[in-house]
Amino acid sequence: MEAELVAETAAPASSGLDAIFHPRSVAVVGASPWSYGAGGAGAGYLLSLREMGCPAVYPVNPKHEEIEGFACYASLGDIDGPVDHVISALPARAVPRLVEDCIAKGVRTLHLFTAGFKETGEETLADAESDIAAAATRAGIRVLGPNCMGLYVPSAGLSFIMGFPTEPGPVAMISQSGTNAGEFVRGASRRGIRFSKVVSYGNAADIDESELLEYLAADAESEIISCYIEGVKDGRRFFKALKRAAAARPVIILKGGRTEAGQRAAKSHTGSLAGSAEVFSALCRQAGAFQVSNLEEMADLAVAFRFGAVPADNRVAVVAGGGGISVAAADEVDGAGLLCPALPEETQRRLLEFIPAAGSSVRNPIDAFISFDPGKLGDTICVVGEADNIDAVIVQMDFTSPGFAMSPLTKGPDTAITALVDAIAEAGAASGKPSIIVSHEKLDVDTVRHTALFQENCWRAGMPVYPTAGRAAAATAALLRWKETR
Amino acid sequence: MEAELVAETAAPASSGLDAIFHPRSVAVVGASPWSYGAGGAGAGYLLSLREMGCPAVYPVNPKHEEIEGFACYASLGDIDGPVDHVISALPARAVPRLVEDCIAKGVRTLHLFTAGFKETGEETLADAESDIAAAATRAGIRVLGPNCMGLYVPSAGLSFIMGFPTEPGPVAMISQSGTNAGEFVRGASRRGIRFSKVVSYGNAADIDESELLEYLAADAESEIISCYIEGVKDGRRFFKALKRAAAARPVIILKGGRTEAGQRAAKSHTGSLAGSAEVFSALCRQAGAFQVSNLEEMADLAVAFRFGAVPADNRVAVVAGGGGISVAAADEVDGAGLLCPALPEETQRRLLEFIPAAGSSVRNPIDAFISFDPGKLGDTICVVGEADNIDAVIVQMDFTSPGFAMSPLTKGPDTAITALVDAIAEAGAASGKPSIIVSHEKLDVDTVRHTALFQENCWRAGMPVYPTAGRAAAATAALLRWKETR
Repeated sequence: MEAELVAETAAPASSGLDAIFHPRSVAVVGASPWSYGAGGAGAGYLLSLREMGCPAVYPVNPKHEEIEGFACYASLGDIDGPVDHVISALPARAVPRLVEDCIAKGVRTLHLFTAGFKETGEETLADAESDIAAAATRAGIRVLGPNCMGLYVPSAGLSFIMGFPTEPGPVAMISQSGTNAGEFVRGASRRGIRFSKVVSYGNAADIDESELLEYLAADAESEIISCYIEGVKDGRRFFKALKRAAAARPVIILKGGRTEAGQRAAKSHTGSLAGSAEVFSALCRQAGAFQVSNLEEMADLAVAFRFGAVPADNRVAVVAGGGGISVAAADEVDGAGLLCPALPEETQRRLLEFIPAAGSSVRNPIDAFISFDPGKLGDTICVVGEADNIDAVIVQMDFTSPGFAMSPLTKGPDTAITALVDAIAEAGAASGKPSIIVSHEKLDVDTVRHTALFQENCWRAGMPVYPTAGRAAAATAALLRWKETR
Repeated sequence: MEAELVAETAAPASSGLDAIFHPRSVAVVGASPWSYGAGGAGAGYLLSLREMGCPAVYPVNPKHEEIEGFACYASLGDIDGPVDHVISALPARAVPRLVEDCIAKGVRTLHLFTAGFKETGEETLADAESDIAAAATRAGIRVLGPNCMGLYVPSAGLSFIMGFPTEPGPVAMISQSGTNAGEFVRGASRRGIRFSKVVSYGNAADIDESELLEYLAADAESEIISCYIEGVKDGRRFFKALKRAAAARPVIILKGGRTEAGQRAAKSHTGSLAGSAEVFSALCRQAGAFQVSNLEEMADLAVAFRFGAVPADNRVAVVAGGGGISVAAADEVDGAGLLCPALPEETQRRLLEFIPAAGSSVRNPIDAFISFDPGKLGDTICVVGEADNIDAVIVQMDFTSPGFAMSPLTKGPDTAITALVDAIAEAGAASGKPSIIVSHEKLDVDTVRHTALFQENCWRAGMPVYPTAGRAAAATAALLRWKETR
């Protein structure tokens, strides 16, 4: 049934979807003022759309004259001018009538935030979902959802949660979970990732993962594609779409419902049949997509593809302050399939010109008390990067260290952080080897501020930042695998 | 050689070491004012000891009259009264003379912060290390190090880095890396862990991992033992000590140098021969110790043993707001070897009395918009905990959610957090099933403050807190394994 609908509307796929990402106006039907636990999520859409700069936003609800400063309309038909995109915050039973109103108004896309359909496991509600999608698509209206958060497209002023960046960027995401989409956008945006199109598509009654992948594979605004998928509707079509997308750009996939418990949760969540985890993994491998285990790893790979220059080969040097940290970094680098070779004698000799031998190691990893001295840090990275047997330099910084607070070279912490990042960036440019930054996330407010400032300066300088050496190594190893397939 | 020394001094082992943890006074020989990158680490000891409340601290350096407000002495002999513990911040070549001074002064323990011995890989320096240890121990002086940070014993006013908690607690750590010891103390203390004795023992020329384990196995102040070990000096003795310690209390071990690169780093770091990773793992398993992969996992297990009530069995319910998060939690719980069974019909019915069906799932995991409503959150945890097929409840909270900021129930965030923690603690007490808290670490300052406050309230209420459902599940699975062996 879904397959027929798709076939009916998806040729040509990309032109069919393009309009949904560029509405001239958005109506939020069933919007009501915010009230915790008693609905009112429509108000969240109004606030998010205003924050993102949506050109025209119309709440629709006969019970209100105004919501959050927007004039409120009694019905869709009362709105002057075109309404391209409708967000439904109505209860499920009111949706069939809404579809009729959308047809009358000439709406292009109906996004059903509304839940209470197929995911309940009740057959009559699953049928209602199919009927709604069929009625809408027959009239040329594309349906997003039901049971989803919808669209975040900063270039078009669309958003579904407040606080997302207004600046657009090259990363796309399709997600069968609005929470995961929100979590990924928030987490990755702190690491410099900006977005072209993020689509939370829920139960996928009409627009589904395959059509979205087909579209994004050819979308000029999307250079990296990330996906959170619980279940696939049409395995063959999905594999074809995934293969095409992964040939065009890096595709990063997180599969929800890999275990029996997760599959039951996925069924309750989006009515998805999660299928075999092994088959899905094999399918990703064959298509050349990168399967990840959680959202953090997804963000790591997005950072790698966005900011990471691909090293010539897999031999890295690790610059860290602290013996135990160095040992752990070496273990993790090795475990990720990179090499951490001993530096040439000549390189070690040059390092010992400014690093005291006692209490330090200059073999690789470099364990020396130089992390908070911009001059020595830069010299270390540059000398190490110039070694013949090194392809990239991992620089590990820890702002919880009392050395940071106590260093007179660092004057104010903000000045120090700028000087450190400049030194790292210049040293990398001088040696011609990519710098990969490792900067721990820490849970005290001052350190978080310093760490966040350091990280932002790093990605603004075009360097990838990861929270552990192991994650930096795993993401860099993925970059190298990607390069091998080009 | 070391084995002989140990035999000479270690009978009875515990009385031999007990004195080093309770010095009446501490001298820092070679102390100098702080100067970044040019030594002066002695000043760090002075400040740390003052902060921890050490009863008597004496800097020794003929070049200064005063350092950091402490009167400075020209030599050890110039100090009136006893000096039990000496920290050497001298260069390696000056240490043999210091040993003579210590003998003359009647010192009990010599801690060599001084590096530049066996870890350099140079045979003459390794010999010098052995000679120093032999000379000291012959005179009844125990040696800690060289090349280590030394002691953090809050109950005795000892510390080696500023900012550690002054409050003591039941967790001990022995560590062949001062950086790792510092990282673990800082990270775990934010999660409610407090310490009895932390020993950074470096090259282990005299006091080593086996003797420390033997001591801690019988130490009434230490209920949980954590270890970071790069290399073991005497495998047979270590295995015996580990077995005895693990029989008495939970022992958590992180092995540094598991790979070829890590082993090279360990050799440069503490002169350790790391040995086979497989043999070490087998040895831990046989002894009944918990081997972990990194310091975060070490902190998770310390939290589990410190705050986690052991569930009756391995069936957990997950309470989370958000479909994707629920699916991931279910996958991770299953992956860690716990079960996440569907709740009984009757329990689901009771939940649906106050949770709206549309957009929620009450099967398990519970996906419902109740996380920031203390009443509904408490009711959910209590109802779920009362189910016959549930042994513990994982409660997942995410303060990045706009729902937290927007909830009128939460008034001020601090009031809201107190109310939420009270509700969770009361619900757990009412149902009689342990609550396990999952609270993400996030990198923006407001969220970090809210998250840190929530986490602190939780562990102060005696509940274990982890940053992800996967880590909560893995730590709880370890608790269950521990219970099985009792």
